[in-house]
Amino acid sequence: MTATRTERDSLGDVDVPATAYWGAQTQRSISNFPFPATERMPIAIIHALGVVKQAAARVNRRHDLPADLANAIDTAAGEVAAGRLDDQFPLVIWQTGSGTQTNMNVNEVIAGRANELLTGARGGKSPVHPNDHVNRGQSSNDSFPTALHIASAVGVHHRLLAGLDRLHAALDAKARAWSAIVKIGRTHLQDATPITLGQEFSGYAHQIARARERIDAASAEMLLLAQGGTAVGTGLNAPAGFDQAVAAEIAAITGLGFRTAPNKFEALASNDPLVQLSASLATLAVALTKIANDIRLLGSGPRSGLGELRLPENEPGSSIMPGKVNPTQSEMLTMVAAQVIGNHQAVTLGGLQGHLELNVFKPLIGAAVLRSIDLLAVAMTSFAERCVEGIEPDRARIADLVDRSLMLVTALAPAIGYDNAAQIAKHAHAEGLTLREAGLALGLVDQATFDRLVRPEAMVGD
Amino acid sequence: MTATRTERDSLGDVDVPATAYWGAQTQRSISNFPFPATERMPIAIIHALGVVKQAAARVNRRHDLPADLANAIDTAAGEVAAGRLDDQFPLVIWQTGSGTQTNMNVNEVIAGRANELLTGARGGKSPVHPNDHVNRGQSSNDSFPTALHIASAVGVHHRLLAGLDRLHAALDAKARAWSAIVKIGRTHLQDATPITLGQEFSGYAHQIARARERIDAASAEMLLLAQGGTAVGTGLNAPAGFDQAVAAEIAAITGLGFRTAPNKFEALASNDPLVQLSASLATLAVALTKIANDIRLLGSGPRSGLGELRLPENEPGSSIMPGKVNPTQSEMLTMVAAQVIGNHQAVTLGGLQGHLELNVFKPLIGAAVLRSIDLLAVAMTSFAERCVEGIEPDRARIADLVDRSLMLVTALAPAIGYDNAAQIAKHAHAEGLTLREAGLALGLVDQATFDRLVRPEAMVGD
Amino acid sequence: MTATRTERDSLGDVDVPATAYWGAQTQRSISNFPFPATERMPIAIIHALGVVKQAAARVNRRHDLPADLANAIDTAAGEVAAGRLDDQFPLVIWQTGSGTQTNMNVNEVIAGRANELLTGARGGKSPVHPNDHVNRGQSSNDSFPTALHIASAVGVHHRLLAGLDRLHAALDAKARAWSAIVKIGRTHLQDATPITLGQEFSGYAHQIARARERIDAASAEMLLLAQGGTAVGTGLNAPAGFDQAVAAEIAAITGLGFRTAPNKFEALASNDPLVQLSASLATLAVALTKIANDIRLLGSGPRSGLGELRLPENEPGSSIMPGKVNPTQSEMLTMVAAQVIGNHQAVTLGGLQGHLELNVFKPLIGAAVLRSIDLLAVAMTSFAERCVEGIEPDRARIADLVDRSLMLVTALAPAIGYDNAAQIAKHAHAEGLTLREAGLALGLVDQATFDRLVRPEAMVGD
Amino acid sequence: MTATRTERDSLGDVDVPATAYWGAQTQRSISNFPFPATERMPIAIIHALGVVKQAAARVNRRHDLPADLANAIDTAAGEVAAGRLDDQFPLVIWQTGSGTQTNMNVNEVIAGRANELLTGARGGKSPVHPNDHVNRGQSSNDSFPTALHIASAVGVHHRLLAGLDRLHAALDAKARAWSAIVKIGRTHLQDATPITLGQEFSGYAHQIARARERIDAASAEMLLLAQGGTAVGTGLNAPAGFDQAVAAEIAAITGLGFRTAPNKFEALASNDPLVQLSASLATLAVALTKIANDIRLLGSGPRSGLGELRLPENEPGSSIMPGKVNPTQSEMLTMVAAQVIGNHQAVTLGGLQGHLELNVFKPLIGAAVLRSIDLLAVAMTSFAERCVEGIEPDRARIADLVDRSLMLVTALAPAIGYDNAAQIAKHAHAEGLTLREAGLALGLVDQATFDRLVRPEAMVGD
Repeated sequence: MTATRTERDSLGDVDVPATAYWGAQTQRSISNFPFPATERMPIAIIHALGVVKQAAARVNRRHDLPADLANAIDTAAGEVAAGRLDDQFPLVIWQTGSGTQTNMNVNEVIAGRANELLTGARGGKSPVHPNDHVNRGQSSNDSFPTALHIASAVGVHHRLLAGLDRLHAALDAKARAWSAIVKIGRTHLQDATPITLGQEFSGYAHQIARARERIDAASAEMLLLAQGGTAVGTGLNAPAGFDQAVAAEIAAITGLGFRTAPNKFEALASNDPLVQLSASLATLAVALTKIANDIRLLGSGPRSGLGELRLPENEPGSSIMPGKVNPTQSEMLTMVAAQVIGNHQAVTLGGLQGHLELNVFKPLIGAAVLRSIDLLAVAMTSFAERCVEGIEPDRARIADLVDRSLMLVTALAPAIGYDNAAQIAKHAHAEGLTLREAGLALGLVDQATFDRLVRPEAMVGD
Repeated sequence: MTATRTERDSLGDVDVPATAYWGAQTQRSISNFPFPATERMPIAIIHALGVVKQAAARVNRRHDLPADLANAIDTAAGEVAAGRLDDQFPLVIWQTGSGTQTNMNVNEVIAGRANELLTGARGGKSPVHPNDHVNRGQSSNDSFPTALHIASAVGVHHRLLAGLDRLHAALDAKARAWSAIVKIGRTHLQDATPITLGQEFSGYAHQIARARERIDAASAEMLLLAQGGTAVGTGLNAPAGFDQAVAAEIAAITGLGFRTAPNKFEALASNDPLVQLSASLATLAVALTKIANDIRLLGSGPRSGLGELRLPENEPGSSIMPGKVNPTQSEMLTMVAAQVIGNHQAVTLGGLQGHLELNVFKPLIGAAVLRSIDLLAVAMTSFAERCVEGIEPDRARIADLVDRSLMLVTALAPAIGYDNAAQIAKHAHAEGLTLREAGLALGLVDQATFDRLVRPEAMVGD
Repeated sequence: MTATRTERDSLGDVDVPATAYWGAQTQRSISNFPFPATERMPIAIIHALGVVKQAAARVNRRHDLPADLANAIDTAAGEVAAGRLDDQFPLVIWQTGSGTQTNMNVNEVIAGRANELLTGARGGKSPVHPNDHVNRGQSSNDSFPTALHIASAVGVHHRLLAGLDRLHAALDAKARAWSAIVKIGRTHLQDATPITLGQEFSGYAHQIARARERIDAASAEMLLLAQGGTAVGTGLNAPAGFDQAVAAEIAAITGLGFRTAPNKFEALASNDPLVQLSASLATLAVALTKIANDIRLLGSGPRSGLGELRLPENEPGSSIMPGKVNPTQSEMLTMVAAQVIGNHQAVTLGGLQGHLELNVFKPLIGAAVLRSIDLLAVAMTSFAERCVEGIEPDRARIADLVDRSLMLVTALAPAIGYDNAAQIAKHAHAEGLTLREAGLALGLVDQATFDRLVRPEAMVGD
Repeated sequence: MTATRTERDSLGDVDVPATAYWGAQTQRSISNFPFPATERMPIAIIHALGVVKQAAARVNRRHDLPADLANAIDTAAGEVAAGRLDDQFPLVIWQTGSGTQTNMNVNEVIAGRANELLTGARGGKSPVHPNDHVNRGQSSNDSFPTALHIASAVGVHHRLLAGLDRLHAALDAKARAWSAIVKIGRTHLQDATPITLGQEFSGYAHQIARARERIDAASAEMLLLAQGGTAVGTGLNAPAGFDQAVAAEIAAITGLGFRTAPNKFEALASNDPLVQLSASLATLAVALTKIANDIRLLGSGPRSGLGELRLPENEPGSSIMPGKVNPTQSEMLTMVAAQVIGNHQAVTLGGLQGHLELNVFKPLIGAAVLRSIDLLAVAMTSFAERCVEGIEPDRARIADLVDRSLMLVTALAPAIGYDNAAQIAKHAHAEGLTLREAGLALGLVDQATFDRLVRPEAMVGD
C-alpha cells in the first residue's frame, strides 16, 4: 500500500500519494482521464508553465504578494522550468480543453514544493496556496496558451531551426559541389532536357530556405502572449500592467522577445497563431516529402533503377534479402512529414471549434504542434547527417543516361521549328536511332547544325 | 429590361423574371448568396428532389391532396426529375445549410409549372401552393437529405460502379495476360526478388475489387431515407405511414431498393452515412493513387527511366520539347484522387459540425460527395480506356533488368544462410560482378547449387 | 560505463549493452533514428510480432526447423507476446518504412532469449539465428503488416468494442428513460418544433450503433493476413502452405478468425484495409463530436445557457473562477475525435504513397491506427461512465423552454395554411405575444382549433 | 452536323469545329478527358495565361520575333486576357498535370486568332505558329505556374482583400459601437465573468486583421514568377534576360509588383508558395468558422436560445415551419470555410507528390486555390453585408443574463480567497440563491464588500 495524505479542493477531500507534490485537483484528473502514460502532456508545456509561474511570482512580488511566498514560488517554479520535477506531472493531453488541470497540476506542485521549502512539509495549500498565490493574477485561460506559445517558440528557436539550417547547408553544399555534373532532367517522370545535379539540389536548398522564412514569420506570432487576459480576456483580478510586466519577465527568463498580445480576447478565444505555425510546419513537410522522394528515386537501384545517386548504407535493409540496402532516412523523413500533416489536421479541427470566450482544444493543439516541431527537428538533422551529406553521384551512370535522351532535340527547335524537331524525336524513338542519326536520315537538320546545337553541357544555362 | 412578375412569401413581395417558374424565395436566395454560376447546386440533387416531390405527390393523393393538384404536381415533378427544367435552378451550394432554399426552389418551380399546366399562367401559389401542396407532409430537413441519398445512390450505381468495373476488368485482363512475364520486384524502390508482371497487376486488380466492396457497403446506407421525419424527426404534419410509402414510391421510380430509415432523428441530425460513403471513396482514391503512380513509374523513360511498360501515346506532351509523350492519364487520375480526398476533408468538417436536431452542412456535403462520385467515375473509365487497356510491356527491357538484380541471392539463403548470402551480394555490388561470379569467387556456393537455386522464373511462386 | 558485448550483422560489428537481448541491427537503428522514447513503436505491435514469430516457429517445426530450436523460439516469442520483455524494444516509429528494424529487433530479442534458454548465454546468433531461424519463411514485408492486422484486430475486439458498447448502452438507456420528456427541438440552432429528450438521445444511440457496424466491417478486413508473401508477395523461401498454416496458428493463439489473404501482392504493396479501418474510426469520431457537442450545448449554463441538462460535476473547472464546473468529458472526447481524424490524415498520406511491391509507410500507419483505437476506447468508456450515465434533465427548464416556442405554430399549418401560420408567428414575435394571443388577435385561427392542435406533447409522434 | 476544319499536330490530323480558334492539341484533350463542363479550368487561369503570352510577345519582339507576328500575338493575347474569347477554352482541370494542354489551348487560340487578324482565316499554324511563335521562349512548365501565380495574386488583391476589409470594418464597427454593453462571458460554454459585447467583437476583428497579414505575406510569394525557366528550370531556348523582362511586362500589364523567381528549379518542381497561400486561406477559414459559429450561437432563439443578438432576417427559413428565420449567412460562411479547408487538403496532396524537375499536380492546385480565393471573397463580403452589419444586440436579454451569473463571485476571490468564494458559488447554485444571498448566508463576505466588488460593469477592464 502506498502511503497517502489528504488534500482538499472545492469538491472535497482526495487522497494523494504522500510522496507527491501535487494536490486534489491533479489527483482527480488522474482518475477522471484514465489514459496511459504514453498520452502524457508534453513536458515542454510543463516547463513553459514553470516559466509562467516564475515570471508571475516576480511581478506579484512587486504588487502585494508577500516576498517570502513569492520567493518560494520563484524557486519552486524555477525547478519546474528546469525539469527537476518532471515526475510530478502525470496528467494527460486528453483532459479539460482549457488545460486547467495541467495548470492546476503546476500550481499544486509549485505550492507543494514551496510549502516544503518554507515549512518542511510537502504539499498542502498553506502558507502557499495554489490558486491564491501561485496562480495569482492568472487564469488557466491565459496561462495555458501563454505556455503553448513559450514552448513552441523555444522549440522552434532552439531545436527546429537547427535542423532546418543543417539540412539547408547540406543541400546547398551539394548544389555547389555538383554544379558541373550535367544530367538528364525529368518532367512527368519522363526524359526531358538536361540540368545539372547542382541545379537540381539548388532547388531543394531553395525550398528549405523559403520554408524557414515562412516558419520564422509564423513563429514570430508565438512571441505575443495571452498572459494578463485572465478568465475571459478582460484581465479581471490582475493588477494594471500585469500583462506587460509578465511578458517582460518571460522574455528575460527565456532570452526570446516575448511581449504582451495586443488583443487578449483573440488570444484566449482563438488559437489562430498556432494554427498558422502548424500550417507552416505542414508546408515544410510538403517540401521535405518532395525532396526525400526525389532522393530515393534518384538513388533507386542499385542495378535496375535510375541509379544516379549512391545513398549512404546505414544498416542492412531486409530480414530476408541478404545484402539489401534501403533509403531508410528518406522513409523516416516522409513518414514524419505525413505525421506532421496529420497533426496539422488535428490542429485545424481544434482551431475551428472554439466557442465564445475560450477555445477548449488547447491541449490537443499544443501537443500536436510540439510533436511536429520535435519530429521535424530530429528528422531533418538526421536526414542531413545520415543521408544528404553522404550522398555520392554515380558520374558514369549519369553521363550514360543524359546522352541517350531524345529530348536533347529541344535545342534544335528554335532552328528548325517544333514540328520538324518532333519528327526527328519520333523517328529516333520508333527506330531505336540516336537523334543525330534520325535527324540526318530525315534530312531535317545538317550535321554541323546538329553538333553545334545538341550539346547537353550547353543546355543547362549559366 | 427583363419583364417581371411579382411573387410573395412570408417576408413580402419580390419581383421575379416573368419567364421563370420560380417564386419569391428562390429570388431572395439569388440575391442573398451572390456566388457565380460555377458554384451552382449539382443538378443531380435537383433531379433527386424531383423524384422526392413526385413520390410525395403520389402518396399525398392517397391521403387528402385533391387529385387534380396531385396529378399536376406529379407531372411537373417528373419534368424536374427528367432534367427538362434544368435552367430553373439557379441557386448555389453556398446557401442555408439545410438546403431549404433549393427545396423551396424545387417546390416553387413545380408549383409554378403545375399552375401553368392547370391554369395556363406560370408561377404563383394557386391553385398549387409550394408549401401547402408540393411540400405537403415534408420539410427541407427530411427532403433534402433524402435527395442527397437518392442522388448518391444513383450516382454510385449508374456511374461509379461502371468505372470501377471497367478498371478492374482492364487490370485483371493484364494480370492474366502477363502471368508469365518475370520481372524484377522492387521494395523501398530498390531491387528485390522477382515477381511476374501479372502478379503485380493482380495486386492492383485486387485493390479495386476490394474498394468496390467497401463502396457497396457504404452506398447500401444510402438506401435508407430520412423522408417522413419532417422538421425534427418526429414526423409532425406527415400522415401515418408516409415515410414507408414515400420510400416505396422512390424505389419504384428509381429502381433502387430504397426504404425508410429506422431512426429519423439520426437521419436529420447527422450525415454519418454520407461521411462514410465519402470515406470509402477516399480509400478508393488512395488505391488509385498507388496504381497510377506505379504505372507511370514503370513507364518512365523512354530511354532513361525504368522503361518496363509502354503507355499509350495519347497526345503531344510538351509545348517546348518536341516529341515528348507523358503519362497524362495517370496525372489526371492522381489529381482526381487528391481532389476526392480533399472533398472528403470538406465532408468530414461538415459532418462533425452539426448541432442538435439538424446538421446544417448538407449542401456542402452533398455537393462534395457527388463531385467525388462523378470525378471518379469518369476518371476510372478514362484511365482504363486510354491507359491500362493499351499498355504494352517492354519484354526485352524487363528481362534485362531482372537478370541484373543482386537480390536473386535471396534464393541461396535457405541453403547457405543469410550471412553468407549477404556476403555474396555485397561482394558482387562492390566489385561489379554477377552474383554467380561473386559466389564462386568467395567460395560460399558451388556452381551447381547456384544454377539450381538462382533462377528468376522459379522464384515467383505458382 | 555500461558493460557491452559485440554483436555482428552484414555491415560489421556493433557493441550492444551486455544486458540487452537484442543484436546489431537493433543497436544500429537506435543510433540511426535518434528520436526520444515518447516516439517508440507501440508495444501492441511488438506483442503482435511475438504472436507471428510463435506461430511461424510452430509451423516451421513441422517443416525442417529442428525441434529444439523451434521450441526455444516458441517459448521466447510467447514471452514477447505476453509482454514480459517489453523493455527490449527501444526502437521508434520513425525508422525504415517496412518496419524491418522492428521485425529484426523482435527476431534478435527472440534469438537472444532463445539462445539464453538453450545455452545460458544471452544474445548472439547461435544456435538460434535471428534471420535463418526466427525469421524463417518470413520477411519483414509480410510479418510487419501481419502484425499490424493482428494488433488492430485485437485492439478493436478487446478494447474498442467495449467502449462502443458501453457508450451505446448509456445513450440508449437515456433514450428509453426520457421518452416522455417533451422539449423544444432546435434546427439551425433556432427554436423548432418539439421533440422528446428520449428521441434526441435515440438519435445519438443510433449513430453509435451504426458506427459499430462500420467498424465491424472494416475490422473484418484485418483478419486477412499478409504472412506467407515473404519479400514481394510471391512467397519465395516459404514452404508451400506456409501462409495458411501460420494464419491458422495465429487464429489459435489469439482466438480471432484470422486467415490468409487471397492476394499477397495487394497485402504487401497497399495498406488499403488499414486506411479503411482508420476511415471508419474517423467516421466514428465525427459522430462522437456531434454527440459530445450537443451534450455540452444542452448542458450550457448553469444560469445563462440552454440549461436543459445537468452534467456530472467531476472536478473544479477553473483556476480563477471559484465554483465553476465545465463539461470536461465532452472536451476530452472532442479533442480525441480531432486527433483520430488527424491520425486518419497521416494514414491516408501513408496509404497513397506506396511504391511498387511495398508500401513503406507501415510504421506510421500502424502507430496512427493503434493510437486511434486506444484513444477512442478509453475516451468512449470514460465519456459514458463519467458523463452520459450521470446526466440528469432539468425538467422545469425544459418545460419552460418548449412552451415559449413560436414554432408550435407549425401544427396549425395543415389547417390554416403555411402563409397564415407564418403571419401568426411573425406577429407574436414582433409584439412579444404568445402564439395563441397572436392567432386570435389576427383572427386567423379560433380558440378551439388552436387548443386542439397546438399541444407540444401531441407533436412528437408516437 | 457541325462544320469542321482539319488541324495538325505532331501526332497527326484532327478535325476541329470550323468556328473554333483552337487547334489539334485542344481537340485531343477534349476527347481524352471527357469530364463535364462544370469541371472546366478556371477562367482566371486562362486570363492569366493571356497576360503571359502578351508579355512574352512584347519581349520576343525585342529579340527576333518579327514585329507583325508579335503585334498580332499581342493583340490576340490581350483579347484572351480581357475575357473576350472565354468560350474558346473548353478544357477541364483534369488533364495533364503540367497544364500543358491548357497552355497549348491558349497558344492555339492566340495563334488562330492572330492568323485571323493577319490573314482573315481562323486557326492554323501559319504565319503564327502556336509553339514556335506564341510559346516562344516558353514552356508549359514555366508558363502555367506563372499563370497560377498571376491569377492568385490578382484574385487576392482585387477580390479577397476587399472581402477581408469589409468584414474587418463591420466587426470593428460593432466592437466600437458596443463597447459599453456589459454581458456575460462564457468559457467552456459555461457562464464565466463579464465582458463587453464590444470586447467580444474586437476579438473577431483582431482575428481578421491578423489573417489579413498572413495572407499578405503568403500572397507576396505569388509575385515571384517561374517564367524564364522553360522546360526544366535552366531557361533553355529563352534568350538571356527573358525572365526578368517578361516579369517586368507582366507587372506593367497587371499593375502588381511581379518579378522573376530567384531559383527557377524550385519554381517548377515545387508549388510550395501556393501550398502556403492555401494554408493561410485555411487559417482564415478557421477564424471565420469561429466567428460565424459564435454569432449564430449568440443569436440562437428567438425565445429558447441564448438570444443576445438579433441577426438580420433575410429570408423565410423553413418550408414547413412558418415564420422561422435562420442564421443562413453563418451557415453559408461555415460551409465555405469547410470547403476551403478541403481545398487545402487537395492542394497539400498535390504539393507533396511532385517528382524531380516538375510537379504535375498544377491544375489541381491552381483550381483549388482560386476556388478558395473566390469563395472566401464572396462569402466574407456577403456575411459582412447581410449579417454582421445588421446585427442588433438585445440589451434587455443581455442584461438579464449577466446579472444571473454565479461567476461574478470571481471578483471576491482576491478579498476572501478562492476556496471561500467557491463555497459561496456552490451554495448559491445548490440553493437557487443569488450570490449576495449566499455570501451573506454563509458569513463569508459582508454586504459592503460584496456590493463594492461584485459589479459586472467594473469587471470588464478598461
